[in-house]
Amino acid sequence: MNTNIYARVVQYYETDKMGVVHHSKYFCWFEEARTDLMAKNGILYRDMEAMGVMMPVTKADCKYKKGAKYFEKVYIHTRVEKFGGAKMVFAYDVKNQEGDTLVTGSTEHCFVDDNFAPVNLKKYLPSLYEKLEGVV
Amino acid sequence: MNTNIYARVVQYYETDKMGVVHHSKYFCWFEEARTDLMAKNGILYRDMEAMGVMMPVTKADCKYKKGAKYFEKVYIHTRVEKFGGAKMVFAYDVKNQEGDTLVTGSTEHCFVDDNFAPVNLKKYLPSLYEKLEGVV
Amino acid sequence: MNTNIYARVVQYYETDKMGVVHHSKYFCWFEEARTDLMAKNGILYRDMEAMGVMMPVTKADCKYKKGAKYFEKVYIHTRVEKFGGAKMVFAYDVKNQEGDTLVTGSTEHCFVDDNFAPVNLKKYLPSLYEKLEGVV
Amino acid sequence: MNTNIYARVVQYYETDKMGVVHHSKYFCWFEEARTDLMAKNGILYRDMEAMGVMMPVTKADCKYKKGAKYFEKVYIHTRVEKFGGAKMVFAYDVKNQEGDTLVTGSTEHCFVDDNFAPVNLKKYLPSLYEKLEGVV
Repeated sequence: MNTNIYARVVQYYETDKMGVVHHSKYFCWFEEARTDLMAKNGILYRDMEAMGVMMPVTKADCKYKKGAKYFEKVYIHTRVEKFGGAKMVFAYDVKNQEGDTLVTGSTEHCFVDDNFAPVNLKKYLPSLYEKLEGVV
Repeated sequence: MNTNIYARVVQYYETDKMGVVHHSKYFCWFEEARTDLMAKNGILYRDMEAMGVMMPVTKADCKYKKGAKYFEKVYIHTRVEKFGGAKMVFAYDVKNQEGDTLVTGSTEHCFVDDNFAPVNLKKYLPSLYEKLEGVV
Repeated sequence: MNTNIYARVVQYYETDKMGVVHHSKYFCWFEEARTDLMAKNGILYRDMEAMGVMMPVTKADCKYKKGAKYFEKVYIHTRVEKFGGAKMVFAYDVKNQEGDTLVTGSTEHCFVDDNFAPVNLKKYLPSLYEKLEGVV
Repeated sequence: MNTNIYARVVQYYETDKMGVVHHSKYFCWFEEARTDLMAKNGILYRDMEAMGVMMPVTKADCKYKKGAKYFEKVYIHTRVEKFGGAKMVFAYDVKNQEGDTLVTGSTEHCFVDDNFAPVNLKKYLPSLYEKLEGVV
């Protein structure tokens, strides 16, 4: 199992008047983190789109234990939880510098073509399928 | 059961290069929708904060069936799914003009004081507890 | 001169830890406000894009006098300051319920085709040019 | 003159349906870039706030030459253009990997205390004033 760690500093514009990061922003961090995991495994989402494959989010969830604070350094631990030709699930664990978990979550994605029609990657783009399998 | 309908037009800045609303933005819409539900029942979240009670999100999830498009009018159907003195759960159903469901989701909230210490609203602020009970 | 007033409530997710609306968000409000001004004059930006014309922002500026607060109702007064076939300038004045100006700003736009090549609207789409002239 | 270069990758959630970064997002990048410039000079904005001094934006402007694209690497060149005890102006130049300027802009800030009352830093916090002077 391939766990990728993506580090990041909390920006001011990500906080809200409660003084911590707004709960919607973690889904943006998850996006950054899975893009980073894939890029480190040689798969650029930009290139996937250029090949005519998109990975829209079909489900997303998040559990909030402790709010991340401004300028805190956070570490997003990301792994592929499931992968088949039709969908892919990523799991995320956002930790602070002390190693405490602040937030956990997951996103489920399907694969679609340029017209948003679902495709089975195993048949549609076997070479990409194999590359993604290597990430699991 | 009190279902509130909150209408809204999709803004350009909420879309991403996929041409539909970015998946993180629905959590902002949910926030608008529950604030509206509460306001229509005489409870302003702004006033709750002034009374020293906050309702941070402890869990959030979303299922995406169809992406909302730019300038589409959407209707967010919101109801309180659970309410006790310690936590509150809202359920959301985002529909388009034809009545099709685009996205569903839920958010769970706890109640905390100014120092982020959890409080049981029934004891901490009985008058607010009763008001919120009226929303269920 | 056609001044359009667009009303809006400040959302929680628009505030930052300073307790007021983050300065970047006013540019999103300006976008909502000019879209509203145009729509009220029978011009849907969505339809413009469908006709192959986009209006990217070429300049934007903002002066901040007083920060808008959570759940405050704001009124964005918008007018077209300049319009020719090649570019269009909007001016904005964000006021609170008491009529005090919180923020002022402007955005300049050019017209481009699907390939982002600048076009002169007077020649490219005379019917749209005339409609937009009616807004000034 | 101290020019700081802050590098950054364009995220998917920063793009809009035009396929490039939404014009409002550059103001968030400017925020990241000036925070980075200050941090590299030993001044953490987080610590300034803890000392009771905030730097709200009083003016902001941006000129857009070319839109930044998804996953493009951008380099934000930042320098202090003006600094006195009462206000501070930063200038930004966002370049791509080829060194072409995509966007330029500036932000003006004043100094306020916890009650948002303007302060002259030279008198209010001479040690911070001197540190900031070193950045110019």
